Amino acid sequence: MTRARKPTASALASRNQGSERHGSRPTIALGALNSHLGYFVRRLQVWIFQDFIRTLKRINISPAQFSVLVVVGANRGLSQAELATTLGIERARLARLLHRLEERGAIRRLQSSADGRRHALQLTQQGRTTLARAKIQVARHQKRLTERLGAEKHQVILEALRDF
Amino acid sequence: MTRARKPTASALASRNQGSERHGSRPTIALGALNSHLGYFVRRLQVWIFQDFIRTLKRINISPAQFSVLVVVGANRGLSQAELATTLGIERARLARLLHRLEERGAIRRLQSSADGRRHALQLTQQGRTTLARAKIQVARHQKRLTERLGAEKHQVILEALRDF
Repeated sequence: MTRARKPTASALASRNQGSERHGSRPTIALGALNSHLGYFVRRLQVWIFQDFIRTLKRINISPAQFSVLVVVGANRGLSQAELATTLGIERARLARLLHRLEERGAIRRLQSSADGRRHALQLTQQGRTTLARAKIQVARHQKRLTERLGAEKHQVILEALRDF
Repeated sequence: MTRARKPTASALASRNQGSERHGSRPTIALGALNSHLGYFVRRLQVWIFQDFIRTLKRINISPAQFSVLVVVGANRGLSQAELATTLGIERARLARLLHRLEERGAIRRLQSSADGRRHALQLTQQGRTTLARAKIQVARHQKRLTERLGAEKHQVILEALRDF
């Protein structure tokens, strides 16, 4: 439980500064965290999220807005409840997200004839254009992530998590 | 890019309700998200974090506090800067975390004789007791995660991410 971990580049840089000043210790032991998947998943998640936010900022959309555009674009007449469940977004937050996307003319809500309470979501022409532009940026983010992880690891993790 | 995904249990439940009311569509297509590792990592991260928070709440410590106790406990005389780098926590946030752990008597900061500006972190006896109690709870969380992912996938992902 106290096995030392191969440090990241930044940890190593910091450690080496420490070593110059104080000598001794080669690595920082992660202790019990070494067997905690959550610790490593969080590190990966932080990296991905920061790069993703930076990537999408150029075209002024958030990661959550991007996910909404993708899933609405891929499912004709999707309801708000279905979208919330699919993306794991709380319904109140999704309502605000959809409101902003509607304001900028990217989506519209059509009243379903089968059920008056149900609003089917749809991308507008402008929404499709925004999504296409976003996908170009996101492909660059994906490329950076694949290079950072290595293509093989990227694929292994993706396959392992698809059914989660 | 529009391949339908095997839905999660909750998505399936929602979808099935939808099908009863409106017939037709078997699954919600994830579209381009299907090849986005970030989407699946986020889902896993949310699950882990929620379970982890619930687990540690019983003994009134946060996931970040737990990580601090583990790494301080595993590294004699660690500095605040080294801890911040290792855990990927912003230094101002770490200072607040350490202050709270000091207040509850779990850690202490010793002034280093080699460098007056440097404070070596150490667990107190009470800190070691808290950490031991936390580890018992965390082992239960780990067990739930391994069961949820399957032991093999858990191992594969852990190995793939250790060097990230």
